[in-house]
Amino acid sequence: MSVNQTEYLNDYKRQLDTNVIKAIEELQAPESLKEAMKYSLTAGGKRIRPLFLFAAIHAYGKDPQVGMATACALEMIHTYSLIHDDLPSMDDDDLRRGRPTNHKVFGEALAILAGDGLLTYSFELIANDARLTDSDKIWLIQLLAKNAGPEGMVGGQVADIEAENKEPTIQELEFIHQHKTGKLLSFSVLAGAKIGGANEAELEMFAEFSHHLGLAFQISDDILDVIGDENIIGKPVGSDDGKSKSTYPALLTLDGAKKQLAYHIDKAKKALNQTKQNPALLLELTDLIAVRDS
Amino acid sequence: MSVNQTEYLNDYKRQLDTNVIKAIEELQAPESLKEAMKYSLTAGGKRIRPLFLFAAIHAYGKDPQVGMATACALEMIHTYSLIHDDLPSMDDDDLRRGRPTNHKVFGEALAILAGDGLLTYSFELIANDARLTDSDKIWLIQLLAKNAGPEGMVGGQVADIEAENKEPTIQELEFIHQHKTGKLLSFSVLAGAKIGGANEAELEMFAEFSHHLGLAFQISDDILDVIGDENIIGKPVGSDDGKSKSTYPALLTLDGAKKQLAYHIDKAKKALNQTKQNPALLLELTDLIAVRDS
Repeated sequence: MSVNQTEYLNDYKRQLDTNVIKAIEELQAPESLKEAMKYSLTAGGKRIRPLFLFAAIHAYGKDPQVGMATACALEMIHTYSLIHDDLPSMDDDDLRRGRPTNHKVFGEALAILAGDGLLTYSFELIANDARLTDSDKIWLIQLLAKNAGPEGMVGGQVADIEAENKEPTIQELEFIHQHKTGKLLSFSVLAGAKIGGANEAELEMFAEFSHHLGLAFQISDDILDVIGDENIIGKPVGSDDGKSKSTYPALLTLDGAKKQLAYHIDKAKKALNQTKQNPALLLELTDLIAVRDS
Repeated sequence: MSVNQTEYLNDYKRQLDTNVIKAIEELQAPESLKEAMKYSLTAGGKRIRPLFLFAAIHAYGKDPQVGMATACALEMIHTYSLIHDDLPSMDDDDLRRGRPTNHKVFGEALAILAGDGLLTYSFELIANDARLTDSDKIWLIQLLAKNAGPEGMVGGQVADIEAENKEPTIQELEFIHQHKTGKLLSFSVLAGAKIGGANEAELEMFAEFSHHLGLAFQISDDILDVIGDENIIGKPVGSDDGKSKSTYPALLTLDGAKKQLAYHIDKAKKALNQTKQNPALLLELTDLIAVRDS
């Protein structure tokens, strides 16, 4: 990535960091709840989803600032899903990005409620956004709820739990990942394109792009889990494997998984290159997924 | 209540029962998740919140059908809150309305996800509603998220947990109830009035009405918990008391709580009687709160 592009994205990441915490601090809510919500929002996430949203708005030559509230909502929903996934009855994780998980610090009850609060507040943030039209807000809320709810992320998490201690097929594994991580990533791209002003045909192209992007993201995550350095990714290497969760390297070998990753990155870029807009930042972010080290 | 009014409300209750389940069955989601969501939605709830919503629309002479999607969303959010409140790390309840709680049947992980799914889907239902204007939908989503989220119901549940094993003042108890149950009940009334076409002044009157209604509802709940019949309310009588949760009868004596209930019912009706609309059904429902036996 060019120095300018890196600087540009870092600037938006910093603005997101500031705004998402400001949104929590403005709440008239019990301090303990706000602390629990902020704790996980400041856990050093890479803000991949907000960055894809900003990059898609940028592709249309619009000011990415217009997407700030939606980006904060997106990061809140992502964060709620991590808090709930880490719970003892789910993945039972003690560490996330090298820090104790939310329930380890605040207890299970407050962790569940912090997740519930982040999820609920995210819809309020979009509904309250004075920079978007009512029509765009409804479009965004429809897609966000669909992609984060029973037909999306929540459904994927259920499928993931049900696949434990089984050996899913590659199709079943793709279903899990398309829902558990793909749908929210897809929302990032489509929301940015919609806010940028994309028409139906362009939204379809972005849907194709984000389909492959989501799979690439999950495969690179699985590969990282096999070859990554525990200090970098902040959780025990191979921890998913230890709980008999199927991964791409386990199903396809490490080499096969790398080939699959390259395939989806290539497909994603081909879709992107059909656009008449400026896909530079989106292409750069896509390359980051292919070579990420955490 | 007159026979006609009872029949009218029962008819809407039946329509709600049908529509809320239909909404789940339409989902392209894992069957286990849909079963868990339906289980708690069909647990024999009295549908108090949807009925207040329908009654408020009726006050404006409009067809209550127009509020069906919002009523389903409301019942889903209420149901999600019960599922999460019953979890072992929260109130740890094994029974709800005489049936095993959601996590007792489906396990904790699926119970948490069923709650997450209901919460998320509720916003999609409103956003997708073809019978409301975009402007009304945004208004409804703003208020629902605010009243169900950190500044509303979720905040109230946090305050409730923090008050355990302490002796809260009557003010602290009112804060808990206004947030934990009052805010969602308030949404029912205000959403119905808004859908009916209420102006700002009328919405303020309905806010005053629902403030007292919410407190009356909680006080009657606490009274019922002391004097109720276990078979009727479906949970062990005095179960809240056993966990050192403060209740109105505990703080004010049973007699004092009954007086407080009568006070709030009276205030609620006085607010209602200011309206130029037809408050008959709302008045009848308010009386039901005062004398309910479950």
